[in-house]
Amino acid sequence: MIENYVHYQLTENVEVLRLLDYETKYFEALWEIPEGIAYNSYIVKSYDSVVLVDTWKIGYGDKLVELLDKIGALDRLTHIITHHLEPDHSGSLVELIKAKPDIIVVGHPLSAKLIESQYGIRVNFKPVRDKEELKLSNLHFSFYYTPWLHWPETIVSYLHNDKVFFTCDVFGSYGAYREKLLSVLNSEERSRYFKLARKYFANVVGHYRDFVLKSLNKLLELVERSEYIAPAHGLILERDETLYMAKLYEKWAKGTDLKDFKILVIYNSMYGFIEKLINKLVESLKDTGYNISTYAFTWNKRPLISEIIGDAIDASILIVGVSTYENKTFPLVEYTIKLLVHKVGCKKTIIIGTYGWSGKTTELKNILKNLGCSEVYCYETTPSQLLDVIRQVKNLIKMEAQFSQ
Amino acid sequence: MIENYVHYQLTENVEVLRLLDYETKYFEALWEIPEGIAYNSYIVKSYDSVVLVDTWKIGYGDKLVELLDKIGALDRLTHIITHHLEPDHSGSLVELIKAKPDIIVVGHPLSAKLIESQYGIRVNFKPVRDKEELKLSNLHFSFYYTPWLHWPETIVSYLHNDKVFFTCDVFGSYGAYREKLLSVLNSEERSRYFKLARKYFANVVGHYRDFVLKSLNKLLELVERSEYIAPAHGLILERDETLYMAKLYEKWAKGTDLKDFKILVIYNSMYGFIEKLINKLVESLKDTGYNISTYAFTWNKRPLISEIIGDAIDASILIVGVSTYENKTFPLVEYTIKLLVHKVGCKKTIIIGTYGWSGKTTELKNILKNLGCSEVYCYETTPSQLLDVIRQVKNLIKMEAQFSQ
Repeated sequence: MIENYVHYQLTENVEVLRLLDYETKYFEALWEIPEGIAYNSYIVKSYDSVVLVDTWKIGYGDKLVELLDKIGALDRLTHIITHHLEPDHSGSLVELIKAKPDIIVVGHPLSAKLIESQYGIRVNFKPVRDKEELKLSNLHFSFYYTPWLHWPETIVSYLHNDKVFFTCDVFGSYGAYREKLLSVLNSEERSRYFKLARKYFANVVGHYRDFVLKSLNKLLELVERSEYIAPAHGLILERDETLYMAKLYEKWAKGTDLKDFKILVIYNSMYGFIEKLINKLVESLKDTGYNISTYAFTWNKRPLISEIIGDAIDASILIVGVSTYENKTFPLVEYTIKLLVHKVGCKKTIIIGTYGWSGKTTELKNILKNLGCSEVYCYETTPSQLLDVIRQVKNLIKMEAQFSQ
Repeated sequence: MIENYVHYQLTENVEVLRLLDYETKYFEALWEIPEGIAYNSYIVKSYDSVVLVDTWKIGYGDKLVELLDKIGALDRLTHIITHHLEPDHSGSLVELIKAKPDIIVVGHPLSAKLIESQYGIRVNFKPVRDKEELKLSNLHFSFYYTPWLHWPETIVSYLHNDKVFFTCDVFGSYGAYREKLLSVLNSEERSRYFKLARKYFANVVGHYRDFVLKSLNKLLELVERSEYIAPAHGLILERDETLYMAKLYEKWAKGTDLKDFKILVIYNSMYGFIEKLINKLVESLKDTGYNISTYAFTWNKRPLISEIIGDAIDASILIVGVSTYENKTFPLVEYTIKLLVHKVGCKKTIIIGTYGWSGKTTELKNILKNLGCSEVYCYETTPSQLLDVIRQVKNLIKMEAQFSQ
């Protein structure tokens, strides 16, 4: 039996088949997602055939085949459009090809090779060029290359008949929603949805944010022509809210919101010394009105790194409170900062270090330098002297805030 | 009110005051300890005064002072022996000095400076030399330097009167036990206790394992003379079981047990390809009788890194199954392996890599090389070809096992 899915009619020719995944705790085995995730596969019907746009996550192929059979779409299935080969969207190919060996898989030319190396199967493959049009019975598709969003061979597709824009990972979000459209959410739910979309963007697409900027105009042109924007994760969007999300994409990809000076604070505190400093510092910055987010690694706290990276993407400045641990940078902070820079790029950074035997703030500064981050300021002292640095750090932040506005 | 502690008479002159800490989830803000931890402070009574041997974790000073007062030990408290300045043992100094400003703190000469830089206080300090004896009323102590176990200024002390050997972190363990002596545990509980001691050793002392070997004879001589061995964490040991634990220390510090060929497998699997390979590999190694431990980072599994490091310390060979992630080593595996090498040293390592777009196993090999690990073998292929490497890896492991025996 197939559970945890929803099936909606979206337009005259398009249906949504969404798998709701509440079981995956770590997306890509890396990102903590207590909110769950969903995989949208779209059924596009012509008068005599069915085209499937993307599939479900690997492991659910048999269920997808069973469901397509149950709703009468399997028999007439002739084509699968695969926007890229990531196994959360291409993961049912093996079972679909097994059920219907003659299916034609449509995708970027590189995808054929990836299908073979990833799944060990050969398929009837129809490569498409950038901007190529494809008519299947009465259906009229166009394909567009959007390289590195977030796989090298990523494409998106547009169904002229119903003005539906299939965007794969672009404009997608975490969360396992049962609703069809984003527009039915109330304002609080919408706000949460956009935070999940930001987290998804930072975690999954973040490393390729420059490619987002490169493809943005192409995407926007298509959005302008569309009635529905149909991503492979999350809810289906309408034109205006997609234009709003595209503005967020631009802001996230550029890495800061100049109007909203935001401070991201990440610290570890082995025995409470740094925590005391950070608490005083955040307290003393409250009257400035800056937006401050704080994440702590302590004896009883361990934040989700997926949330930190999501929150980091539009931060103007990063404050890192870090211990020296066995003559090195505290390992969890080093791990977090390196992943943060990989995903959302360099931030203006203030490192506040504390040490017992010997200081190592410069090590983290060098790590950042090796990652290409040059604007890094260091303050380092012993636990008993830590509070002295608050005034200096506060002055530096005020100066940066002035420059940013 | 003071809760979660136990108070025992150990010998004629020595009492145990143990704080049971079930609240700390991450020891040193790093190591996951669902088993909890305890801090042993020892009250040593002469006919006219009280000496405290180590204190409780920072944050519990007021409670310790209150309790010492309640049991009538505060009034006569004249000396505190501090074996090193880590705040889980020295963390009540501020409150104790506040309650009794004339107390004399006894420790390694470097400790005075650390007390000032860490807590911002000056104390009446009595430095002791290696092997120095100290008579306080009718009490007769000796002190021994054990540098870098695991702080630079670590000392241990011996009470001649009652043949009690105070070892601070040495021979300690995780776990918040209420029992006084290790000897009261049944064999299953003892087995668990030694696993927790191994985990503690690897997590906390592991990086300084060469210093363990350097101090081991000195420690053994003292153990031979002792009736009770009184660590700062965990249960109190008697002579024979401490000699057994010292043998384990030697094995752990040397990094492998030649009689027991043990394979540690750590892998990540983003979409199940590597997991399938590792499962087949482990299955195919079962008939060899090797001891195999497996830790997986997947869509629904995230092992405790404290447990991995604990289990790694006596492994003969390490198998790492790792994805290429955005043209780099999968971040959580890189983090784990680097921390593992920092804590328990290089292992003979077999890296099995899988990639979609391009392979990067060599990156992890280079990371290991930069950490000084030279015996690293790489196998790298695409998901669909992964199973081909099993035979090769199995042959390599069998060869290594023969060499090890």
